[in-house]
Amino acid sequence: IIFSHIFSHQHLRYNPLRDSWVLVSAHRMKRPWKGQVEKPPEENIPRHDPNNPLCPLSTRANGEVNPEYDSTFLFDNDFPALQPDAPDPGSNYHPLFQAKAARGICKVMCFHPWSDITLPLMQPGEIRKVIDKWAELIEELGSTYPWVQIFENRGAMMGCSNPHPHCQIWASSFLPNEPALAERCQREYLRKHGEAMLLRYARMEAQAQERVVVENEHWLVVVPYWATWPFQTLLLPRRHVLRFPDLTSQERDSLASIMKRLLTKYDNLFEVSFPYSMGWHGAPTGTHLEEDMNHWQLHAHYYPPLLRSATVRKFMVGYEMLAQEQRDLTPEQVSPAAAEPLKPWPSLTGK
Amino acid sequence: IIFSHIFSHQHLRYNPLRDSWVLVSAHRMKRPWKGQVEKPPEENIPRHDPNNPLCPLSTRANGEVNPEYDSTFLFDNDFPALQPDAPDPGSNYHPLFQAKAARGICKVMCFHPWSDITLPLMQPGEIRKVIDKWAELIEELGSTYPWVQIFENRGAMMGCSNPHPHCQIWASSFLPNEPALAERCQREYLRKHGEAMLLRYARMEAQAQERVVVENEHWLVVVPYWATWPFQTLLLPRRHVLRFPDLTSQERDSLASIMKRLLTKYDNLFEVSFPYSMGWHGAPTGTHLEEDMNHWQLHAHYYPPLLRSATVRKFMVGYEMLAQEQRDLTPEQVSPAAAEPLKPWPSLTGK
Ligand SMILES: O=P(O)(O)O[C@H]1O[C@H](CO)[C@@H](O)[C@H](O)[C@H]1O
Ligand SMILES: O=P(O)(O)O[C@H]1O[C@H](CO)[C@@H](O)[C@H](O)[C@H]1O
Repeated sequence: IIFSHIFSHQHLRYNPLRDSWVLVSAHRMKRPWKGQVEKPPEENIPRHDPNNPLCPLSTRANGEVNPEYDSTFLFDNDFPALQPDAPDPGSNYHPLFQAKAARGICKVMCFHPWSDITLPLMQPGEIRKVIDKWAELIEELGSTYPWVQIFENRGAMMGCSNPHPHCQIWASSFLPNEPALAERCQREYLRKHGEAMLLRYARMEAQAQERVVVENEHWLVVVPYWATWPFQTLLLPRRHVLRFPDLTSQERDSLASIMKRLLTKYDNLFEVSFPYSMGWHGAPTGTHLEEDMNHWQLHAHYYPPLLRSATVRKFMVGYEMLAQEQRDLTPEQVSPAAAEPLKPWPSLTGK
Repeated sequence: IIFSHIFSHQHLRYNPLRDSWVLVSAHRMKRPWKGQVEKPPEENIPRHDPNNPLCPLSTRANGEVNPEYDSTFLFDNDFPALQPDAPDPGSNYHPLFQAKAARGICKVMCFHPWSDITLPLMQPGEIRKVIDKWAELIEELGSTYPWVQIFENRGAMMGCSNPHPHCQIWASSFLPNEPALAERCQREYLRKHGEAMLLRYARMEAQAQERVVVENEHWLVVVPYWATWPFQTLLLPRRHVLRFPDLTSQERDSLASIMKRLLTKYDNLFEVSFPYSMGWHGAPTGTHLEEDMNHWQLHAHYYPPLLRSATVRKFMVGYEMLAQEQRDLTPEQVSPAAAEPLKPWPSLTGK
């Protein structure tokens, strides 16, 4: 069967994880760009800044002093969007004025004691420690909360307000919109086709080799057929894995290695510390731990904003906000695949 | 009945037009902002720039010379995302690799011959001409296309690449995701509650007066109860109006007046030409013109990015992209209502 379409004309592609469409305008990159130009990421970040609340031994907003940590470091977000004890807004609803209680917990995890390092520059053993902490957190917070969102905003362009390498973990008493969509779509797919959607998808992409960015024994990274962001990727295990803590030790080492290769490619694309938002989606937790969740397959999304260079981004505005996501090149044309996966960028030598 | 909830704690609110939820974290604005700071909008835009392809008498990318227009000016987008004649990608689909034909037309409309003017600085009579053109375009393109999206990206922060005041009109052979959602939600609401959703909503908001920004005999502007962007507004007619061309002459004059008041308020909030993406949603057109579309109510969305000042924006990243939209203050706390509606800003005197 022919299962991909590489067109040079505009067309729509279906996103089966979100049950929606993206407008692919293959020919639109020819337009000249006279719009906003971004500041390239800061390059001279000091390794240690005593005024940075994320550094070892710094004092944070709540007065606590960070330990002299030498690996990962976890703490409660000092300005949490979710708190465990918010009151219930009550039940006097009108269908047009519906509110619901939202409870949860927001944590921050530093990846490393240095501010001038990023995941792709870390050693695989150091990345492995981040991975183990992710697994622990999903296990721990997931024992009560139905959803634990691990995400990293990298770069000021992606709203990151602190250059120190870190991610966030927001656990919530509710299943948020995006995972609720992924839940419905994957459930429906299994019911209709008898197989987990993303397991099938990974197999087909691995065979086609048209959108593969990096792969190893346990993992596959592709530019999804339905990618909306330029250079967007989807990271998938080859085995059927419901949740992050289910990963074996071998799979975790292998994940550290593929993350390093993927992120090094990103950095080498425009020779810049590549901005993105990334996050993990696995089967819902809490009371869902007791349910049959075989339609789920663990995966991570990488959403990078850059389009043409280190300083020209894709704006998801006007048409995209009001009508539908639109991209200026096909997913096949905009892939980090071609970039160098091994040469670390920027180099830490010289420091 | 009590139909609104003004909380000081985090909670979820339901968006009945999108069937999704927004996380409202009322207490999160206290966090210090050390992240990206935006360039304020350019202030010294020349009234006429012969190198700007949107100005009267300029030569555009395709070699055409603009007329010496003195009101609105309409032309085909020289780098269209949608073209009328794109080939069909064919029917060899797999459920995970679905593509569809997308055809359409993209137009640009200049509001005024001057580059240094914006809608709120234009005379009501000049705005009325824009409104009449919008009606004409929906009528004309809507006779064959099921969806005609009128939108304005204002400001470089919103991806606008040309300071000359203009909007875009993209007509498509398909109903895009967002209007498809609004179609489903409004249809469902009428079926369940026997009244058009937004007609009911406008009445309740007009009565409550808690989120009203500006109003007149024919129009109401509110910060919707489910607003996700800071300072987001929804512009609604008081009468049941399915589509833009159905507006009477009186309603159009009244619209020009309320747009001017709303946009002047926006500009006065941070004393800056306020960036936003805005657009119109009315009942689908084309073959839908023959169908019963009484569940629809015409409306415009204004989505502004600024959060704290002219240079600090709200980033919809990480958690928002991967889990759910989240806001740092309640919709009631962040409203353009308080701003001055009459004092024009920036002043054109001095030019
Ligand atoms: O068409 P323009 O103004 O060049 O481009 C702008 O609006 C488009 C429609 O919202 C977006 O797709 C672009 O990302 C944005 O930069
Ligand atoms: O939590 P931070 O890093 O201060 O803030 C950043 O990430 C959050 C979660 O994605 C967003 O809500 C904010 O808009 C963004 O600036």
